[in-house]
Amino acid sequence: MQKYAQILDLVRERNPLVHQITNYVTVNDCANMTICFGASPVMSHAPEDVVDMIKIASALVLNIGTLDEKQIEGMIAAANEAKKCGIPIVLDPVGAGATLYRTQTAERFMNEFPLAVIKGNAGEIGTLAGVSATVRGVDSGNISGDPKEIAHSLAKEYGCTVVISGAEDIISDGKRIAGVLNGVPIMGKISGTGCMASAVCGACAAVSDSMDGCITAMAALGIAGEEAAKTAKGPGSFKPAFFDAVTSLTNEQFIKSARISEYQ
Amino acid sequence: MQKYAQILDLVRERNPLVHQITNYVTVNDCANMTICFGASPVMSHAPEDVVDMIKIASALVLNIGTLDEKQIEGMIAAANEAKKCGIPIVLDPVGAGATLYRTQTAERFMNEFPLAVIKGNAGEIGTLAGVSATVRGVDSGNISGDPKEIAHSLAKEYGCTVVISGAEDIISDGKRIAGVLNGVPIMGKISGTGCMASAVCGACAAVSDSMDGCITAMAALGIAGEEAAKTAKGPGSFKPAFFDAVTSLTNEQFIKSARISEYQ
Amino acid sequence: MQKYAQILDLVRERNPLVHQITNYVTVNDCANMTICFGASPVMSHAPEDVVDMIKIASALVLNIGTLDEKQIEGMIAAANEAKKCGIPIVLDPVGAGATLYRTQTAERFMNEFPLAVIKGNAGEIGTLAGVSATVRGVDSGNISGDPKEIAHSLAKEYGCTVVISGAEDIISDGKRIAGVLNGVPIMGKISGTGCMASAVCGACAAVSDSMDGCITAMAALGIAGEEAAKTAKGPGSFKPAFFDAVTSLTNEQFIKSARISEYQ
Repeated sequence: MQKYAQILDLVRERNPLVHQITNYVTVNDCANMTICFGASPVMSHAPEDVVDMIKIASALVLNIGTLDEKQIEGMIAAANEAKKCGIPIVLDPVGAGATLYRTQTAERFMNEFPLAVIKGNAGEIGTLAGVSATVRGVDSGNISGDPKEIAHSLAKEYGCTVVISGAEDIISDGKRIAGVLNGVPIMGKISGTGCMASAVCGACAAVSDSMDGCITAMAALGIAGEEAAKTAKGPGSFKPAFFDAVTSLTNEQFIKSARISEYQ
Repeated sequence: MQKYAQILDLVRERNPLVHQITNYVTVNDCANMTICFGASPVMSHAPEDVVDMIKIASALVLNIGTLDEKQIEGMIAAANEAKKCGIPIVLDPVGAGATLYRTQTAERFMNEFPLAVIKGNAGEIGTLAGVSATVRGVDSGNISGDPKEIAHSLAKEYGCTVVISGAEDIISDGKRIAGVLNGVPIMGKISGTGCMASAVCGACAAVSDSMDGCITAMAALGIAGEEAAKTAKGPGSFKPAFFDAVTSLTNEQFIKSARISEYQ
Repeated sequence: MQKYAQILDLVRERNPLVHQITNYVTVNDCANMTICFGASPVMSHAPEDVVDMIKIASALVLNIGTLDEKQIEGMIAAANEAKKCGIPIVLDPVGAGATLYRTQTAERFMNEFPLAVIKGNAGEIGTLAGVSATVRGVDSGNISGDPKEIAHSLAKEYGCTVVISGAEDIISDGKRIAGVLNGVPIMGKISGTGCMASAVCGACAAVSDSMDGCITAMAALGIAGEEAAKTAKGPGSFKPAFFDAVTSLTNEQFIKSARISEYQ
């Protein structure tokens, strides 16, 4: 647990700038969560703007939740520069499987860029892994098959870390496979939990190995969610409490509460 | 009251996917309110994306709060597919009357698509009904004439349900006319109450007759607003309490608290 | 203090419509803060829409936080009409200095339009004033040189009011120089504080002299922030408390708590 807790510290110390090109639904939550986690968010999507911004950023997060042609242009320009600069790229393929446009765009980024992390729910990752999956809008879907196997083989194929969010988050870099059991159901009752997790995976990947970074990110948000749920009266009051809990999360609390399993 | 309360249950049971093409100001509130109400939101606006998404959606909500040409393209593609699939289309003509662009766009959708619901404030609906109306930005305006008559005749003309939000919400499908007295002034002190109501009208229209659905939606949000106002110290604390109150609203509470009048 | 407190009253009395073309990250916060402050927000960016909207607006706020070509088109159309109508234009050059695109766009608006207010952090204003500045994404940066001098000379050069936000906000109209010490560090731990301040500067500039208006805006938000920080457990709970505190801020509280220095 110590090594994961240290990643929390590293983010807070180095305050990495996380460049995010994301959907217009949860973008404010992503910005605030990035700050609460100890990093700095910057949102920029114009092809004219992203190259300069990537030069000073430490990670790039691409979230396709409200995709369009203009946004793809900006994402490509940013990803090209991120590749050149060698900073980690996180892809959140929101809604892959629900529409062909989203699936194909996600695949395009997977095939054309050296992604550090692909993070989605079971339906999205299942779709991209080519296994039978059901996706309904942007809700978490289901897959046939073992998520550990799917994460492992997709990670191996693309040389990146794959995160499948769920009751147990599964994380694999193609070698190791880990599970994170932290979290509470109310986290699924607010819009943006997945998007915020991707932002935070970006912050962690900016300061550490992607696999360890994603484990840390998922466990930290899960623990904060558990903490926030203690006082929340519903999804409305959960959200501010969640931001507070992420901000005040200590190493000690992380080490005590993290439920991380190494499966392989 | 029983039949309206049952619509609440139906939404929670069937969890309809509500496709929303909406403004970038209140989109996060709309997503969260849709979830709190028991439905699922999905936001998608690219012409390349919307057709696939509509195929799995149960309602389409078009909100013109921050309109532009690209968004209109996406709205038209989505509305065409919604028409083909026979799912209800809700139009929230935000700011109609304030600018010609908004008025004409709203009219275009009214004339070209079989809308299930048109929901706006007095100024917006008055403008679209061709009565003398004052609209100031996106604030609720005033109309000359009886809102019951205006809602009734506009609904009749377009074969849809018309909702005029206000201290008393007026709802008509061209045959019946109903009023909903639930709600509190602080609901007008946060941005997005009207947009959230439209999202929830979409959720209800997905599982029931539009007229009954809109009555249910307006009464449910009004009751939740009354509940939330009891503990709120201002608009800031009202908002999370409002989301909590919608989430925890029971049938019993709805039946006890709904103030619905059938005028015709 | 009396004259500043009266500006608070004037905003609440006249309820000016503040037209905002802004970034998609903090737009909801800007809308809500505008309402809490006693004004009315309207967001509209399409060239086809902005001209009609400006005709009924009392101020225009341009925030370049998530700039793109389409948005610049809308900003230019709106600024041209605002110039014609003689309403104050506030520019928030978010991220100027971080990318050339942002710097040049900010300069373009400074050179082509009669701005009433330029409001940014030290790095942004330093960049635009041509002094050595460091900017990191959209975070507040540093400048070499005296912020009072920089604000004063930039204000003089452009015939407008310049606000440099910081631990002490510096405000100058090229003649007077004032400082506002209100505020708390947690205001920098939520996304959007600067954007909300620009919106509120627009509301105040709509009803008063820009210099006095900006002093009032910065002091009022600072005092409300101090109040909200008393009960906040972190950035998450700070935000709703901040909105509540702005809404309930009284003249008496303003006069008692404002820490405004006139340096020249």
